Amino acid sequence: MTRVAIYDTTLRDGSQGEGVNFSLQDKLLLTKRLDDLGVDYIEGGYPLSNPKDAEYFRAVRDLPLKHAKVVAFGMTRRKNGSAESDGGLKALLEGKTPIVTIVGKTSAFQVTEIIGTTLEENVKMIGDSVAYCRGQGVEVFYDAEHFFDGYKLNPEYALQTLKAAEAGGATCIILCDTNGGTMPERVAEVVAVARRELKADIGIHCHNDCELAVANTLAAVRAGATQVQGTMNGFGERCGNVDLVSAIANLAIKYDYEVLKPGSLQRLTEVSRYAYELANMNFRSGQPFVGLSAFAHKGGMHTHAVAKNPASYEHIDPALVGNERRILVSELSGQSTILSKTQKYQIAHDKATMAKILNQVQDLENVGYEFEAAEGSFDIIVKKAVGTYKPWFQRLAYRVNIEQPATGKPITEATVKLSVGGSTEHTVSEGDGPVNALDAALRKALVQYFPRLDEMQLVDYKVRVVNPKEGTAARVRVVIESRDHQDVWGTVGVSENIVEASWLALSDAIEYKLFKDEEGTTKNGN
Amino acid sequence: MTRVAIYDTTLRDGSQGEGVNFSLQDKLLLTKRLDDLGVDYIEGGYPLSNPKDAEYFRAVRDLPLKHAKVVAFGMTRRKNGSAESDGGLKALLEGKTPIVTIVGKTSAFQVTEIIGTTLEENVKMIGDSVAYCRGQGVEVFYDAEHFFDGYKLNPEYALQTLKAAEAGGATCIILCDTNGGTMPERVAEVVAVARRELKADIGIHCHNDCELAVANTLAAVRAGATQVQGTMNGFGERCGNVDLVSAIANLAIKYDYEVLKPGSLQRLTEVSRYAYELANMNFRSGQPFVGLSAFAHKGGMHTHAVAKNPASYEHIDPALVGNERRILVSELSGQSTILSKTQKYQIAHDKATMAKILNQVQDLENVGYEFEAAEGSFDIIVKKAVGTYKPWFQRLAYRVNIEQPATGKPITEATVKLSVGGSTEHTVSEGDGPVNALDAALRKALVQYFPRLDEMQLVDYKVRVVNPKEGTAARVRVVIESRDHQDVWGTVGVSENIVEASWLALSDAIEYKLFKDEEGTTKNGN
Repeated sequence: MTRVAIYDTTLRDGSQGEGVNFSLQDKLLLTKRLDDLGVDYIEGGYPLSNPKDAEYFRAVRDLPLKHAKVVAFGMTRRKNGSAESDGGLKALLEGKTPIVTIVGKTSAFQVTEIIGTTLEENVKMIGDSVAYCRGQGVEVFYDAEHFFDGYKLNPEYALQTLKAAEAGGATCIILCDTNGGTMPERVAEVVAVARRELKADIGIHCHNDCELAVANTLAAVRAGATQVQGTMNGFGERCGNVDLVSAIANLAIKYDYEVLKPGSLQRLTEVSRYAYELANMNFRSGQPFVGLSAFAHKGGMHTHAVAKNPASYEHIDPALVGNERRILVSELSGQSTILSKTQKYQIAHDKATMAKILNQVQDLENVGYEFEAAEGSFDIIVKKAVGTYKPWFQRLAYRVNIEQPATGKPITEATVKLSVGGSTEHTVSEGDGPVNALDAALRKALVQYFPRLDEMQLVDYKVRVVNPKEGTAARVRVVIESRDHQDVWGTVGVSENIVEASWLALSDAIEYKLFKDEEGTTKNGN
Repeated sequence: MTRVAIYDTTLRDGSQGEGVNFSLQDKLLLTKRLDDLGVDYIEGGYPLSNPKDAEYFRAVRDLPLKHAKVVAFGMTRRKNGSAESDGGLKALLEGKTPIVTIVGKTSAFQVTEIIGTTLEENVKMIGDSVAYCRGQGVEVFYDAEHFFDGYKLNPEYALQTLKAAEAGGATCIILCDTNGGTMPERVAEVVAVARRELKADIGIHCHNDCELAVANTLAAVRAGATQVQGTMNGFGERCGNVDLVSAIANLAIKYDYEVLKPGSLQRLTEVSRYAYELANMNFRSGQPFVGLSAFAHKGGMHTHAVAKNPASYEHIDPALVGNERRILVSELSGQSTILSKTQKYQIAHDKATMAKILNQVQDLENVGYEFEAAEGSFDIIVKKAVGTYKPWFQRLAYRVNIEQPATGKPITEATVKLSVGGSTEHTVSEGDGPVNALDAALRKALVQYFPRLDEMQLVDYKVRVVNPKEGTAARVRVVIESRDHQDVWGTVGVSENIVEASWLALSDAIEYKLFKDEEGTTKNGN
């Protein structure tokens, strides 16, 4: 079995996608999860382009990664300068990553028309930049931008740029179909040429403009590429990068290449959905392998056949990629998912308990809940199902009032009435908005009983429409991320009313914190 | 140039997709539009399966189609019966279409395991059914279900079923990758075998379960298939059928096959969006060729290069498929972005005006605005900067009140006070949540002045925290997507108060609609 290395650029090229935006915290969370999945390289960002990426490279050094190497991305030196004095290369090396990836121009057209220099100077820019970084003690990958278009225009020159990178010490040379316009048989042919001409490893980087990114990636690997670059769910500009989910699943299941690590494939569905949550994007239900509909069967004939033998309308067992068959139009999790999700809890894992949890989860999923990024809320559901839940407080009522004059800021006031520790607490607070006012009133009522709530703060707040067709009357799902000194946890609430959905997520967040402190457990400790 | 016939099954196989539902009227409208596009065959439905499809075949005879032939879909006769007395074949012929497509089993596994008959009887079912329909004076296409899986299992038997259909008189034999699990090089190899063994035309029918439907379709055509079956936008069960949009664009532009009719390609974007609208589904912005983001450019470097020469980051001219280039206004935007972004406006493009717009955009971006998905709001900023903006209404005040008892749903009431057309309007409305209540009260106040607001509906609502470190006191960005019969537009609002941010996005959405109608422009028309 040939090993194919997976190079994830969700955090860099993926974030070029329209509507994709990761906070620093999101980037760190996704890095951790990609490492768990067994990805070989994680391209974390482009340090020169913005301060958030530079901050990421400082913060990521504290993450205890098990397998993946973090890579910083940058460009070749500016024309007519020296690598030593180049600001971009300086910023790149300041990322202090074990590997850097440098992108350069392969296409004669790009060199003369876009960056406006000579073909010779461009070759020097590549060689100098790679050699300089190599001399600073880091491994260098070289991204040959527009390789396939450049090769078509001027094959000798395109190969010359690759050889300059190789001579400079690049260990892997990645052929990029930057504009996504190349056909699979051409990709195969050109990769085979590069394979013959070079000694370095060859990588492939495809875009999906012709809906052929997966086919092109597979064709390149079959022609000799041993590194695949792409993004989770195919995030990326225009039509996106190649979707690593599909690339990985096809390489492993259909061609028997060695990718990721043993057991990783079963986590593809979970990691795909986690990436959507972090990017605050909706899942694509028809997404191959991991989509909610990927193994959904509608219509009597197919459903019947699938009941007789699933292979009749399924190309693989959905469990291979952590997905599930769905017979009815529903979003139901299966008992096996619940079993694997509750492994870490000290509870009975008998059939009856699992069924009880499953029922609760299914009821909530049916109205729009998602637990991928809401382990705090899932924890509370498990406690309720097995009978270890106790309410820390009870809501009697709340009220929120927002008054907006013609101009200026609105005034928001929330009152909260709770039963806690046998007493009734009735508090009021103003806030910047309804959720902030509710949060303040809630804390005012509770902190005297539970002083450690002071350690807790909210780090992120996301809202998503569950049934978008209803416009502003749609149900919304609020996901809140909270943290204390040790942990970060997500909670979720769903309602037609955004304030009520926020309340549900807020009160789960507080209860999770109180249970956690009582049990003396931390999430990361599990 | 070899001609490839396009067989559209959006109305039959496409409607098996989760969430896809066409009314009879929708089906007739789409038939007309597909005929205008130059599709060769339109599979209208499965008469036996439901009364709506039978009704469709009656109604479609009255449509004045210019080019396309309408096809009815059915199965081979039941096992151990006769074709003459088969209810399914009777229903099929009652469609009175010039062509019928009959689907049958190719796979020995499917024959014995799923339909439970002998291999011999299945071959007879195919031959009898085709010959009977042929004898009734209609042309017959034969869909070989599970052909690639069946061929793998038992190649001789799979070919025998095709030959039975050919002997019965089928003029085109369509090889189906029903489960979507076959790899492109295998498709090419097996199609080439069938091409050698048969005299009839060969068609290809792919599903997208491995994200390879387009690649498989192209491979089949290059191996000798001359009919391509698929659906608009890849609608269909599980991961969908092959997207005809991508298949057609690649065949015509990348391989120079003759498809559809002259001038058709430029209508692909319009027809794709029309199909989404009829199916009541949201556009997929990253869809190859026709998606809103397919030719969108973000990030200074790319934007700069595209301004110099579009070919630098575009594989084809978007106008070829009726799409357009979009320069996204992102954090990285500079004056060149603003210049290209405002090319379509009838305004002075001098330095002073550009600087004025850029300043406004940057000020707003600094407090958390993003205009990537908010062209409606960007349009209003341009109007304000160049002095063509006029307010359609003025806010005097609003108030929102949410009352939540211990259990049950909260009650939400919004009041809105506006100055509009010289009068003061003061309205109140309840809603499912604060934004819904505000939206309702706003419309109540405005619709008597601007009746066309009734055409407008909200399709999506997204919320994102701008500065997450502040928790619930953070500023939030609300992005709303609205649509009318012709256009979809995004608007944005930012505030520490989610209700105020929603108000800002809502009122921009309404103003954009009013300006657009006044100017008689549609976004697609530019």
